[in-house]
Amino acid sequence: MRYAMVVEYDGTNYAGWQRQKNAVSVQQKIEEALEIVLGVKTIIYASGRTDSGVHAEGQVAHFECEKELNTRRTTYSINSLLPSDIKLQNIFSVAPDFHAQYSAKRKTYVYRSYVNECPSPLKDRFYARILPPVDVEKMKRASKALVGKHDFKAFCSTGSSIQSTVREIYEFNILERDDEIIFEITGNGFLYNMVRIIVGTLYFIGKGKLPETAIEEMLSTGKRKLGGKTYPACGLCLKKVEYIDAD
Amino acid sequence: MRYAMVVEYDGTNYAGWQRQKNAVSVQQKIEEALEIVLGVKTIIYASGRTDSGVHAEGQVAHFECEKELNTRRTTYSINSLLPSDIKLQNIFSVAPDFHAQYSAKRKTYVYRSYVNECPSPLKDRFYARILPPVDVEKMKRASKALVGKHDFKAFCSTGSSIQSTVREIYEFNILERDDEIIFEITGNGFLYNMVRIIVGTLYFIGKGKLPETAIEEMLSTGKRKLGGKTYPACGLCLKKVEYIDAD
Repeated sequence: MRYAMVVEYDGTNYAGWQRQKNAVSVQQKIEEALEIVLGVKTIIYASGRTDSGVHAEGQVAHFECEKELNTRRTTYSINSLLPSDIKLQNIFSVAPDFHAQYSAKRKTYVYRSYVNECPSPLKDRFYARILPPVDVEKMKRASKALVGKHDFKAFCSTGSSIQSTVREIYEFNILERDDEIIFEITGNGFLYNMVRIIVGTLYFIGKGKLPETAIEEMLSTGKRKLGGKTYPACGLCLKKVEYIDAD
Repeated sequence: MRYAMVVEYDGTNYAGWQRQKNAVSVQQKIEEALEIVLGVKTIIYASGRTDSGVHAEGQVAHFECEKELNTRRTTYSINSLLPSDIKLQNIFSVAPDFHAQYSAKRKTYVYRSYVNECPSPLKDRFYARILPPVDVEKMKRASKALVGKHDFKAFCSTGSSIQSTVREIYEFNILERDDEIIFEITGNGFLYNMVRIIVGTLYFIGKGKLPETAIEEMLSTGKRKLGGKTYPACGLCLKKVEYIDAD
């Protein structure tokens, strides 16, 4: 039997999703709890890694299990073993060929930020703080170039060994509320640090450190150095992964 | 010269606002930073205490200072000495007779909760989790009895030695968003644990553990035992304190 789980986590204290030798990861914590509940070592496969310090509201992972599970009871059992910053939202049975990564059709990330001279203790865990002033209208205009199918090579940190850097962005929204600026981005997939580089480049445009055409130039030339810096992990959150084709 | 400060804090790791002998308080942390910056021991007076674990977006406190301050620079200096879970939003000069507690006209508290079977790592620091089901319409109807000038004796934890238990509630709103239920309450003052008892009683009504008339009965009899339990501190946040008469 194959099962999938939806996981929410506060990534602050973890070295990211993926298991590592010398650091504690979200995957390790869940696999340890799963082994206790199922009585057998079980590997989980996520929709994708999240970096150190990145959060998730709806990470999805699948695993194989020989016996049939009472999914609700198993969710409770695993949650009772997990630390307070990692919790399953549910477990459900999936088709034998379901794969959390390869079957994913759309992913949505949220990047939370606020523009303020003073730090906010109630926000700093899940938001990046930006110093004023920022021209949000400029950022909104510049962000339009992101939507569609493009080669996002310039929005990828070196060190990734991915084959194709072409991705499609379905939606990109910038929402303002009080001093908050929230970026919401949906696409068929994301390169290493892609969202954080997009947000960093938009902020550099909004602060006048880069021209409004920077995004278009990055897309046409593939040059990472034409963009802004990679913005902090704490603002980023994997909101949801969708598996049903939107067509 | 008298100055006031607006303070935001994540109360999770503090024994409340007020200085205590054997525990770390928010007041102590700010006074320690203030002493370094001003070069002299300085006591700060808040609009009121907040309990252990309670947060604040807009706590107000005043202090006396012999020299004239560059308020912006002083804010930065103090913030650089404060831990990341306590930060000043600003400092401003006030009249010599201004008192953070006695001059306050209106206070607004927010109580954040969410209704879900599974814990949410992204919310648990600032929200109380409630198990479904809950009848929110019942809670909304019952909450109407709170607005106005009443003797809130039944909404006060024992151990407080206050003289009058009459308070006026100006506004009470219950907002729903996804699985969240947010209570926002504005009044001329609040008794010890008053907001947490109000929320606990409303939830008991929403869960059918208390009749819809419980609030009215508490107000007319003054009996604490007719209400629900005192709900957790983590959901409570002092949103703002207002000093200009709204009339």
